[in-house]
Amino acid sequence: MTTSFGPPAADPPAGGVSDTPPVGGKSDTIAAIATPPGVGALGILRLSGPSAREVASRFLKVGGEGLSPKRAVVCRADFDGSPLDRVVVVYHPGPATSTGEELIEITAHGSAFILGRLLAAALASGARAALPGEFTQRAFLNGRLDLSQAEAVCDLIRARTGRSHRAALEQLEGGLSREVRGLSSSLTDLLVRVEASLDHPEEDIPIVEPGAALCELEAGRSRVLTLARTFKNGRLLAEGARVAIVGRPNAGKSSLLNALLGMERAIVCASPGTTRDTLEEPCDLGGIPAVLIDTAGLTDHPADEAESLGLERTDRALERCDLALLVVDGSRPSGPEDEAASRRILERLASLGRPALTVRNKADLPSAAETPEAPACDAAVSARTGLGLRDLVARIGPLLGDSPGEQDGVTVTSGRHHAALLACASELAAAGRSVTERPGAWEELAASGLRAALRELGSITGEDAPASVLSAIFARFCVGK
Amino acid sequence: MTTSFGPPAADPPAGGVSDTPPVGGKSDTIAAIATPPGVGALGILRLSGPSAREVASRFLKVGGEGLSPKRAVVCRADFDGSPLDRVVVVYHPGPATSTGEELIEITAHGSAFILGRLLAAALASGARAALPGEFTQRAFLNGRLDLSQAEAVCDLIRARTGRSHRAALEQLEGGLSREVRGLSSSLTDLLVRVEASLDHPEEDIPIVEPGAALCELEAGRSRVLTLARTFKNGRLLAEGARVAIVGRPNAGKSSLLNALLGMERAIVCASPGTTRDTLEEPCDLGGIPAVLIDTAGLTDHPADEAESLGLERTDRALERCDLALLVVDGSRPSGPEDEAASRRILERLASLGRPALTVRNKADLPSAAETPEAPACDAAVSARTGLGLRDLVARIGPLLGDSPGEQDGVTVTSGRHHAALLACASELAAAGRSVTERPGAWEELAASGLRAALRELGSITGEDAPASVLSAIFARFCVGK
Repeated sequence: MTTSFGPPAADPPAGGVSDTPPVGGKSDTIAAIATPPGVGALGILRLSGPSAREVASRFLKVGGEGLSPKRAVVCRADFDGSPLDRVVVVYHPGPATSTGEELIEITAHGSAFILGRLLAAALASGARAALPGEFTQRAFLNGRLDLSQAEAVCDLIRARTGRSHRAALEQLEGGLSREVRGLSSSLTDLLVRVEASLDHPEEDIPIVEPGAALCELEAGRSRVLTLARTFKNGRLLAEGARVAIVGRPNAGKSSLLNALLGMERAIVCASPGTTRDTLEEPCDLGGIPAVLIDTAGLTDHPADEAESLGLERTDRALERCDLALLVVDGSRPSGPEDEAASRRILERLASLGRPALTVRNKADLPSAAETPEAPACDAAVSARTGLGLRDLVARIGPLLGDSPGEQDGVTVTSGRHHAALLACASELAAAGRSVTERPGAWEELAASGLRAALRELGSITGEDAPASVLSAIFARFCVGK
Repeated sequence: MTTSFGPPAADPPAGGVSDTPPVGGKSDTIAAIATPPGVGALGILRLSGPSAREVASRFLKVGGEGLSPKRAVVCRADFDGSPLDRVVVVYHPGPATSTGEELIEITAHGSAFILGRLLAAALASGARAALPGEFTQRAFLNGRLDLSQAEAVCDLIRARTGRSHRAALEQLEGGLSREVRGLSSSLTDLLVRVEASLDHPEEDIPIVEPGAALCELEAGRSRVLTLARTFKNGRLLAEGARVAIVGRPNAGKSSLLNALLGMERAIVCASPGTTRDTLEEPCDLGGIPAVLIDTAGLTDHPADEAESLGLERTDRALERCDLALLVVDGSRPSGPEDEAASRRILERLASLGRPALTVRNKADLPSAAETPEAPACDAAVSARTGLGLRDLVARIGPLLGDSPGEQDGVTVTSGRHHAALLACASELAAAGRSVTERPGAWEELAASGLRAALRELGSITGEDAPASVLSAIFARFCVGK
């Protein structure tokens, strides 16, 4: 396996991304703290640019041997002439680094104060504070990564389930790029032949028959749409889903939430340190990064203002969710009030167009006789024993649009890529129409459509991407990446 | 300068700490995420122990050359047989590392998911999850750091002003250890001579005259107390101070708070990502790590429940503060109500035993005539222009017990060390009393007092420290340190 994904220093670039000329030689040297903020054992300051080593040598007291390539050296870092910390420095000479430039990585104690002063020392020594995503942007500008790979860096860092992680890693490895370049290559091949027909109308036998051209355009369009279709899954993996848990008081909503969290906790922990509402819990639902939303118990006659507010909040949660789990207590005969409450919720969800699963909880207890009026149950679980939980999770995925089997190939996870693919398909459709509608003089229009389709594909990997697109993309990144 | 402070891999140990025998050879291999939690560009997993390299080689796909000492190698990390990330690995062979053992540092993308799986891969490959502070504890057990140096690692990471940082760094460099060992050495010298007198009572001329012994005991006690006295400052630098800002509505309390924050913001930023109350702001007051507490305006007749609650909260802030700044508006003639409110606050602070400074704000505006009843002002400032702020900060320090000049030497910052020094001084005083009270038979008691005093000093650097003390100390640390 040849991969190009990867942090700090990396191997030569992924195949086929050498079109963009390196511009690193003219750029300045940037510096940023690369580890998350807060207190930890260690933290990293990173420098990239033509004078990274020179800048670092101004505030690092490296001994006689100096910094030699890829060697970890222990030395003292100074701030304003006073000792600041003892650090480990590694010097990665350019251009075979992740940014395509000279790179210096300094590992210090993980205190915001020390890292802040280390950064200040770097700035005082001639570096400039890096903008968000600027290290990755340089990797792109220097041809180390194409644009879709650069975008995947951000997704990789944010991924919190195994499947999201795999989709981002595949894109960073160049999976999407290879697919897109394969499409571009077939369409370019067709465009060359169509243009040759235009340039040599004197030939008796046309270089491309309209029937063949139409066939190739349709085949291309179909491949583009197949790729675009993976976005249904990809968006779910990249953006996650909101799952509301609703039901009558004591139906076991919170215990179901905890059971779902607990089932997955052994596999993946939610990113610690992220702020979250007390009622919302990030959770890995069969690889889908989900947020479970616990809601107040549904009552018919709110006793006080607090209960009314709780019901309002539940309704807002329903409006904002992608799926709701309606929990009913299967161990207790349901009364008319329970059934009315359930029906109201299901009607509300139907009117909002949200899918719902009715879950009979407490399935480890003897089940109560069901009345004909009670809503049919989609799943029976026991939050206490874990019974039925895996089946429930397996049923949630498809309702959210998930089809895990499709992830074997490349998955489109970015709205920007999806839009470009749809635009590409629509250009190809227009080119096809010009063939059927003007069979005598189709070449000019088809060539123009093919060029437009290729531009759309090129925008995914970043060929000739305008500066405004680039800055919008890299602004999503954190500083230091 | 020879320093022993420092993270990851370090130079040979600081002088004189080789008393503790290395135990690393028998220990297992530990692993932990060493960078703060959250999302960042990079994160580090650290392994320490006799089989660190072997464990790492089980989940890292290092190519042909393998891991060679201190060389940064780019390779793929796997989790459960699937690619996880491309990482940079550095192998530091033992025992010349910060833990005194074989050390592996793996830099990956800074995502909690990736680092969590990297840790899981290390655990599945034979490592054990490190306890809080266990890396530093190993540095101590392997004689790379003495106990006071190990404790300074924690302080260094938490320090948020230049002076706190310097005090922690000095201690990590072994400043306190050298001072304590100097004291131990003089007292041991005296003890040897006293014991010789006991063993050879037949000598005509005593080896130590009681007068000389008394003199040496007193000199030792005085040095110990001088060192202990630096704790007044040291505690302030390690623990910080709470400064409440109180005054009438519109006196300019919030603008003074912002001005004090702004003055220092260019020099030091508060650690981002730390939770704090909206009304409390960490601030660097002339090197003292302070927390400024903004309070509600003082009114005589609270208009509603909210105002009453605000006043109650202000009173709680006064109870919990180390110093209060009473802000008055100098541009407006003060009425009898203003003066009464000021007097009430100053009386309340006096009854709580809290120092206070009365600050006349808005000194950039023409000042109103002062009435004889108005409280005298200690400082005049303009929060708007910055006038007088530096003088105000200079006056705050001494009221908090700060004497910056004293920090040139060693500063005791730990309550544990301070208590040991006081206990040592008291043993020396008791030994001295035995000389004056029993001039004929003082040697036995003095020797016993000297041994007790030496034990107290030894507890600072960790000689024969009991396991319970060690675990209490290292439990304060974060995991990964």
